[in-house]
Amino acid sequence: MKDITLKEIATTLGISITTVSKALKDYSDVSETTKKAVKELALNLNYTPNSFAVNLRTKESKTIGLIIPEVSHYFFSNIIKSIIEEAEKNGYLVIILQSNESLELEKKQVELLINKRVDGILISLSNESNNDSHIQEIIDRKIPLVMFDKIAKLAKCSKVIIDDQKAGFDATQHLIDSGCKKIAHIRGPLNPQNSIDRYLGYKKALEKNNIPFDSKLVYTCEKVSFEEGKEFAKQLLEDHPDVDGLFAITDLVAVGAIDYCNSKGIKIPEELKIIGFSNWFMSQVIKPNLSTIEQPSYEMGITAFNLLLEEMTCRKEEEKFVPKTIELETNIVVRTSSES
Amino acid sequence: MKDITLKEIATTLGISITTVSKALKDYSDVSETTKKAVKELALNLNYTPNSFAVNLRTKESKTIGLIIPEVSHYFFSNIIKSIIEEAEKNGYLVIILQSNESLELEKKQVELLINKRVDGILISLSNESNNDSHIQEIIDRKIPLVMFDKIAKLAKCSKVIIDDQKAGFDATQHLIDSGCKKIAHIRGPLNPQNSIDRYLGYKKALEKNNIPFDSKLVYTCEKVSFEEGKEFAKQLLEDHPDVDGLFAITDLVAVGAIDYCNSKGIKIPEELKIIGFSNWFMSQVIKPNLSTIEQPSYEMGITAFNLLLEEMTCRKEEEKFVPKTIELETNIVVRTSSES
Repeated sequence: MKDITLKEIATTLGISITTVSKALKDYSDVSETTKKAVKELALNLNYTPNSFAVNLRTKESKTIGLIIPEVSHYFFSNIIKSIIEEAEKNGYLVIILQSNESLELEKKQVELLINKRVDGILISLSNESNNDSHIQEIIDRKIPLVMFDKIAKLAKCSKVIIDDQKAGFDATQHLIDSGCKKIAHIRGPLNPQNSIDRYLGYKKALEKNNIPFDSKLVYTCEKVSFEEGKEFAKQLLEDHPDVDGLFAITDLVAVGAIDYCNSKGIKIPEELKIIGFSNWFMSQVIKPNLSTIEQPSYEMGITAFNLLLEEMTCRKEEEKFVPKTIELETNIVVRTSSES
Repeated sequence: MKDITLKEIATTLGISITTVSKALKDYSDVSETTKKAVKELALNLNYTPNSFAVNLRTKESKTIGLIIPEVSHYFFSNIIKSIIEEAEKNGYLVIILQSNESLELEKKQVELLINKRVDGILISLSNESNNDSHIQEIIDRKIPLVMFDKIAKLAKCSKVIIDDQKAGFDATQHLIDSGCKKIAHIRGPLNPQNSIDRYLGYKKALEKNNIPFDSKLVYTCEKVSFEEGKEFAKQLLEDHPDVDGLFAITDLVAVGAIDYCNSKGIKIPEELKIIGFSNWFMSQVIKPNLSTIEQPSYEMGITAFNLLLEEMTCRKEEEKFVPKTIELETNIVVRTSSES
């Protein structure tokens, strides 16, 4: 469809383009009669201000970019939900990209967003990423940036995190308090900070309780999937039939482990106590119900957007900006799978 | 950060702006030496083409809008995933908005996307929406539009659907084939086409098998939630203790019903057979595993984007465009919950 321009409205009414523009903006030096005529015609012709031209003038796109590892994922889809709601309340639209846990794709997506001139970027890193050149480029270009959940510790930008080490400690301590003596850990991949921290929390809890750490009791996921939960539970119970506790990196993996145990008639919590991480919806549906660490996904999205908004406002007004890190609380949710 | 312009590159190298622009685009009438010098300087200065200016010139934003009722939802998050992947492959970015099942919000979001001058819009309607004025506005403005899953039957635009009536029929027929004589239906809200069609399919199957339809056996969800599944299962079993089959509008509701039955010791499938709709992940996790209708969410997203791309290309080349409706196949997935 051909776009209606200010010029066409001006020509039709026999007035100047400036007058049309002023009339649409309700300037006081244009008569009410003219304003009415302009507005009516604009409405009839379906006139829309050209947003590209507006963008050129204001240098703002009122659009932000959001890069996450995986869209179809209980935790991340809750974060997306809260970010787009909060952004919309504040007049921003959100372009969403999925890195698929690939550093290469994530780099390409950062370039796309920079070229698109988004006003700011929110990112949760892929498993392969760290404080790499693409992150540095965003920071060097002074494009507002907030990392959340999966962050690069050394990146000089704002961050929203939880204390994964403390949460991993709490999960393990809870199993010990429930009577477990030999506790396994299905951990996440080796690179991401949150998977490292949950593992360190697990080790710390064992140490504090004088339980010797045994690296053979630690299994490492690649995909952090339901299937891996099943496979590692099988391997764990073959390797260490006397294991009595399991802390899994996330609920999806824990649910896979429960599914395997159920299929083999291994009684949870009597023979093996299990705790997950994140409080996915399915954790209250699986039998037995899964104990877990509650991670505040909705709050994390809201906090991340508001930190970004703070930086965007700061940059616009050319004020000095100092990055902030906000740490959100986690809670342990005890259900049947770890009852003593 | 100050943006580097073509003019600054031109001034620094003592050549014209046109030459700089041509060099960056690899025009053949610019010498290789000049091209090299321009590209190196552009790289050093971190030059990015001003996307707003590019947009003004090409009248394309290379951005599409996607409006869906609910982001944190197994079916829709799979659709989002496939749409953003397919869009990215084709050089498009996706702005995602969530209508929260509200017509008012959906209208506002359509306005936002029109003002943003997106190249096209993909929409799955809210429960309150139909062929309303905001949809008509998109069509009148000749902005490419594809509806998927939750559509307005009468809207003159491309659509990607499944045959919900046939699928509802299949689900009910399967319960009858498994021996059910008294089958209840927990349906979706009254307005959405897909919830009407699944209900009509249920009625049709009863009719074909000479089972009298009883409106008291139909319960109507407002939110289509896990909690409603639990509540209606309770009410159903109190009202009709002799019911032996249940077809639920979606897996989430069916899982709520199973959860209630499990808590009351009602044996599935022995006493009550249950089938859901959509094949959510949790359906293979719940005990007993839930039978369901497999809805091709991933394929639906890909098909919807490609129909949109077809229309965008057509409109750009000012060719005549005729809307298409593509119907995707559904399959019945039989698991323990409906075994005979």
